[in-house]
Amino acid sequence: HTVQTVDWNPVAAEKAGYKHFMQKEIFEQPRAIIDTLRSVVDLNQERLRLSDLNISQDLVKTVKRIHLVACGTSYHACLVAKYLLEQLCHVPVDVDLGSEFRYRGPLLNSNSLLLVVSQSGETADTRAALKEGLERGAHCRAVVNVVGSTLARMAHGVLYTHAGPEIGVASTKTFTTQLVALYLFALHWAHLSGRIQPRQLSYHIQGLRELPGKIEEVLSAEQTLREWARRFMDREHFLYLGRGLLYPIALEGALKMKEISYIHAEGYAAGEMKHGPIALVDEKMPVVALIQKGPLYEKMLSNVQEVKARGGKVLAFVEGDRDVRLDDDVLQFCVPQTAPWLAPIVFTVPLQLLAYHMADLRGTDVDQPRNLAKSVTVE
Amino acid sequence: HTVQTVDWNPVAAEKAGYKHFMQKEIFEQPRAIIDTLRSVVDLNQERLRLSDLNISQDLVKTVKRIHLVACGTSYHACLVAKYLLEQLCHVPVDVDLGSEFRYRGPLLNSNSLLLVVSQSGETADTRAALKEGLERGAHCRAVVNVVGSTLARMAHGVLYTHAGPEIGVASTKTFTTQLVALYLFALHWAHLSGRIQPRQLSYHIQGLRELPGKIEEVLSAEQTLREWARRFMDREHFLYLGRGLLYPIALEGALKMKEISYIHAEGYAAGEMKHGPIALVDEKMPVVALIQKGPLYEKMLSNVQEVKARGGKVLAFVEGDRDVRLDDDVLQFCVPQTAPWLAPIVFTVPLQLLAYHMADLRGTDVDQPRNLAKSVTVE
Repeated sequence: HTVQTVDWNPVAAEKAGYKHFMQKEIFEQPRAIIDTLRSVVDLNQERLRLSDLNISQDLVKTVKRIHLVACGTSYHACLVAKYLLEQLCHVPVDVDLGSEFRYRGPLLNSNSLLLVVSQSGETADTRAALKEGLERGAHCRAVVNVVGSTLARMAHGVLYTHAGPEIGVASTKTFTTQLVALYLFALHWAHLSGRIQPRQLSYHIQGLRELPGKIEEVLSAEQTLREWARRFMDREHFLYLGRGLLYPIALEGALKMKEISYIHAEGYAAGEMKHGPIALVDEKMPVVALIQKGPLYEKMLSNVQEVKARGGKVLAFVEGDRDVRLDDDVLQFCVPQTAPWLAPIVFTVPLQLLAYHMADLRGTDVDQPRNLAKSVTVE
Repeated sequence: HTVQTVDWNPVAAEKAGYKHFMQKEIFEQPRAIIDTLRSVVDLNQERLRLSDLNISQDLVKTVKRIHLVACGTSYHACLVAKYLLEQLCHVPVDVDLGSEFRYRGPLLNSNSLLLVVSQSGETADTRAALKEGLERGAHCRAVVNVVGSTLARMAHGVLYTHAGPEIGVASTKTFTTQLVALYLFALHWAHLSGRIQPRQLSYHIQGLRELPGKIEEVLSAEQTLREWARRFMDREHFLYLGRGLLYPIALEGALKMKEISYIHAEGYAAGEMKHGPIALVDEKMPVVALIQKGPLYEKMLSNVQEVKARGGKVLAFVEGDRDVRLDDDVLQFCVPQTAPWLAPIVFTVPLQLLAYHMADLRGTDVDQPRNLAKSVTVE
């Protein structure tokens, strides 16, 4: 027999045909979400099985305040979770950065639940926050991606995201699976507290089941976002605007752009525009607007008009119908409609793709951006 | 007698020799703070007279959660106040943007106190938040600068800042007097709840009395900040970093720079640097670091080193001794030491001057920046 030389590069193989790990991981999101759902939801019987989280009806009655603590992208997931927990469970929620939490003398006691969120389960500032919570007698739980990690072992209960290994330094699939996990956490809490009935639980779970398909729809429009990236690749500034559940997604979209393309993108609550940032808007600063259906729709449209009136270029991500055109001057990307709580997850995906293609076109080291490490294990 | 023609320009006269109203208003801060203090503090007897605020011991016992709501600069004052209220009064505090508050279904009831903060007392989103609070049966209070304004009339009690009229669109003296007012609010609450004794109250009041002198010290160093501004006036990006009580001041410093100089300045919690923004840092992006004495000092110094290691230029505002030099490569401005709670107020002033001189050197319309209005009375 003849010896065959296989032209096989192990790293490229692991990328499964994608140019970068980040791109591959963006496309893995439907699968990562299905895996996360399957791990804790009985999809036939539409029940939650969250025994590892170790939350009882007694605990739900005891807890008067929930503290969510995380860093970076995971912090943005916590900002979304505050909306979910307060509205579905009627429990007051505080959200803190890991690096800030323990220095501000947080009011923690045996009526507090501290929930920390981290991909690696090793993030130093988050670990220090959890340590503080344990010492102060709070009930402590963790949402992490790495089984057996330090946070998983320290907490009194854990909920795993099943994103699989994430190689790209900029988090993508771990963020969307965190959002799914925190949604499930809120549903579980609401169910235990008697705030939602089996029928409502079933409605929420149905929405989650449809989510991977909606994300596939976004992924199939990748080329549009590559074209947008090409058009704006020479800009050095971006403003990302959102309201309500999409305000944290504006922050996350801007962070993604910062991390890998080195463009100075900043996220803002759209209603704050008039209180300062609109002074920055001119033709050099494109504005990304995240527009969900519902009570905030008209307000976002009026923000879009304000930006246009100041000569700013708008990239609008709009939930719903492809046929509804906002304005000929506005670039418009259609985001599939979901149950309202799920909009943050679906809106995240096109922003990841926009940042990814911007970085790729600018020729940065997408998977290992300068100055950054995958998990920050020092304070 | 002969008729004399007076070469007298009424606008210039009102500026009292300053080039812009904003500059004048920055220099009025010691006086504005004294007026605010005098209005409610009996400086001889070291007692608080806050009867217009209409807070009783019963109310303090009833309230389980305080909601602070504001927009723009006033929102940053509320972020500082959360620290004060939680630490001095042990009452949980939520801080919300006016434009976000009522859309997130806040948990308000007769055990909630809603405190709104606004210079004009007319800010539309803040007014809508207050209306929501009143309808939901919350106890409502306002901190405003304009006597008889809508918010003052709607709320169940009011605390006035005595900043006097503010003409410059970018808030300066109204911000520092808001910080004083919110500090007094926290002291009053702590006193009524029995958490601080007369001797401690007296310590706090003593610190406040010394504050105008400390601000005068900063103002006397104006030329240094003009030189810094000259050196960096061609930059289009800035990062402002702070921790703890100075994190909101980093946000406020960056907002001031945005508003009047149109430089894209962004504020960040310094501990978050490693989770993304440090990817942006290079020689084109100077970094402003706010460094308070105490437990966060060493951590801030290590952030300064990280920035330097990535080729970033650091402008450090450092509390304390003029003789302690951080580093020859770092520009260093000495901020007079105060009681810890007062650091946010003193640190604000040099950041105002830096933004002001940057804008003046760049030739923008300092008192009426493009796209902005003094009070935002539409949503």
